[in-house]
Amino acid sequence: MFQLLDIIGTMAFAMSGALTAMNKKLDPFGVFIIAFVTAVGGGTLRDIMIGRTPVGWMLDFKYVYVISVGFILAILFRKKFDRLRTSLFLFDTIGLGVFTLIGLEKGINIGLHPIICIALGTMTACFGGVIRDILCNEIPVIFRREIYATICILGGIVFFILRKMNLENDVLYLTTSLVIISIRLMAVKYKWYLPAIENK
Amino acid sequence: MFQLLDIIGTMAFAMSGALTAMNKKLDPFGVFIIAFVTAVGGGTLRDIMIGRTPVGWMLDFKYVYVISVGFILAILFRKKFDRLRTSLFLFDTIGLGVFTLIGLEKGINIGLHPIICIALGTMTACFGGVIRDILCNEIPVIFRREIYATICILGGIVFFILRKMNLENDVLYLTTSLVIISIRLMAVKYKWYLPAIENK
Amino acid sequence: MFQLLDIIGTMAFAMSGALTAMNKKLDPFGVFIIAFVTAVGGGTLRDIMIGRTPVGWMLDFKYVYVISVGFILAILFRKKFDRLRTSLFLFDTIGLGVFTLIGLEKGINIGLHPIICIALGTMTACFGGVIRDILCNEIPVIFRREIYATICILGGIVFFILRKMNLENDVLYLTTSLVIISIRLMAVKYKWYLPAIENK
Repeated sequence: MFQLLDIIGTMAFAMSGALTAMNKKLDPFGVFIIAFVTAVGGGTLRDIMIGRTPVGWMLDFKYVYVISVGFILAILFRKKFDRLRTSLFLFDTIGLGVFTLIGLEKGINIGLHPIICIALGTMTACFGGVIRDILCNEIPVIFRREIYATICILGGIVFFILRKMNLENDVLYLTTSLVIISIRLMAVKYKWYLPAIENK
Repeated sequence: MFQLLDIIGTMAFAMSGALTAMNKKLDPFGVFIIAFVTAVGGGTLRDIMIGRTPVGWMLDFKYVYVISVGFILAILFRKKFDRLRTSLFLFDTIGLGVFTLIGLEKGINIGLHPIICIALGTMTACFGGVIRDILCNEIPVIFRREIYATICILGGIVFFILRKMNLENDVLYLTTSLVIISIRLMAVKYKWYLPAIENK
Repeated sequence: MFQLLDIIGTMAFAMSGALTAMNKKLDPFGVFIIAFVTAVGGGTLRDIMIGRTPVGWMLDFKYVYVISVGFILAILFRKKFDRLRTSLFLFDTIGLGVFTLIGLEKGINIGLHPIICIALGTMTACFGGVIRDILCNEIPVIFRREIYATICILGGIVFFILRKMNLENDVLYLTTSLVIISIRLMAVKYKWYLPAIENK
């Protein structure tokens, strides 16, 4: 189940990367690389920083396949993205929840402090998109408009509160994912956003 | 003492990051992340490259606190930065000296060649700012105008010359910091800069 | 022989980095850093991702010297680059072949899957240029126009096909390099390129 959600999230991230790259009129290699780093960039950065090398996608072959499929689907359906927007958004939100949990788990496994684990969860879920935007020469969108990272942080806090209550792992994971996914859906529905801080 | 200077430098770097991010009208999460990477980005890059993982700030909690305080101060006093410019510049210069020394030390600890140690010192002191500028979609300022990295390199050379003389560690560290700090103060006072190399 | 080609490739990459940096009117420190990351950035990223730390150039001093020479040559001959264009292009192509092989080899040494090894070869040869373009605030040129990475991938596939035939290592390496170098020369001569994927 969790495995399946991981695949859905990875594919959604790869497709969002491919879409951004096509908007920048990149060539197929460029589109593939951007799709790839959007999907695995956050986890790669996390693995490098905690010394878990070779990094995840080099050892678990699933990711190369899933991203390749996402890349091909994005190219085939590139003129129909407007109609697919809702499904893609839903998959992306699933990715947000699952990737945050994976990051939290890796931090806990090596005994890091909860705050650092939350940072790792947020990094896993959000920094693929940050690298995508840097490669496409944009200021990362999550620093500007969307309540995106903030939701991962909230999800991480909920996770550690529930964990104190000695819930079973399954319940813990499911609840945290649902919290992240629901806040994100509400944030978009009700147009919640963080205001820019201006200093002039 | 050295510990205190490290805290002052980290806070100054975090505030300089927050300031740049606010100039780009980022949201609070974006401002925090830019403050964070400006403060610890150089050391993180160094740790990753020498295989010292999990990287420093994940194990020593001090940095998360200090950067959070710097972030809050930067937001509170964001309209008064013109009056605080001199103090902030002074703190930033302390950071430059201390961070260079920390980088030099990490390289020496694992037995690297002096030239590589100087590269690590310069990286520790300067590459937080480089990552800050990339995230804000600018060509890094230290590649364009300021004599900044050059001072770290000079400081590193002085360090190894003094070290050959078998000075005590305390004297060695203090002298190197003072050299870096004084050159930087003079560079700004007398407007020393490296000319651009043009090829047209 | 292979050692010599590695030096030629490294120097060509350093000079291409220096040239790009001078076009952006950076100061000498900026030009040096861009030359350095263009030459060793791909290998550094590869080493970090597979956990081979301290990264290569920190342990093998050759690179610091070769890049310094390339940097100085680039500055001295900066007004004559138009006449040197052909030689520089040839050296750069040698670098492409050699660096791909080095990346493939590192992956094989730690037992990674052929597809991951090809990714490592491509990363070694191409990502120095990607980092150069990001530091210079450009969308990486290899994502937009040039058939560059694609050639490394083809070279990698040829390498593993030949390897199945139990060729001797020398023959294997030489043939792969020649394949990469010839495709690149033909790609430029006959103006082969990948078309942009547009989604409008």
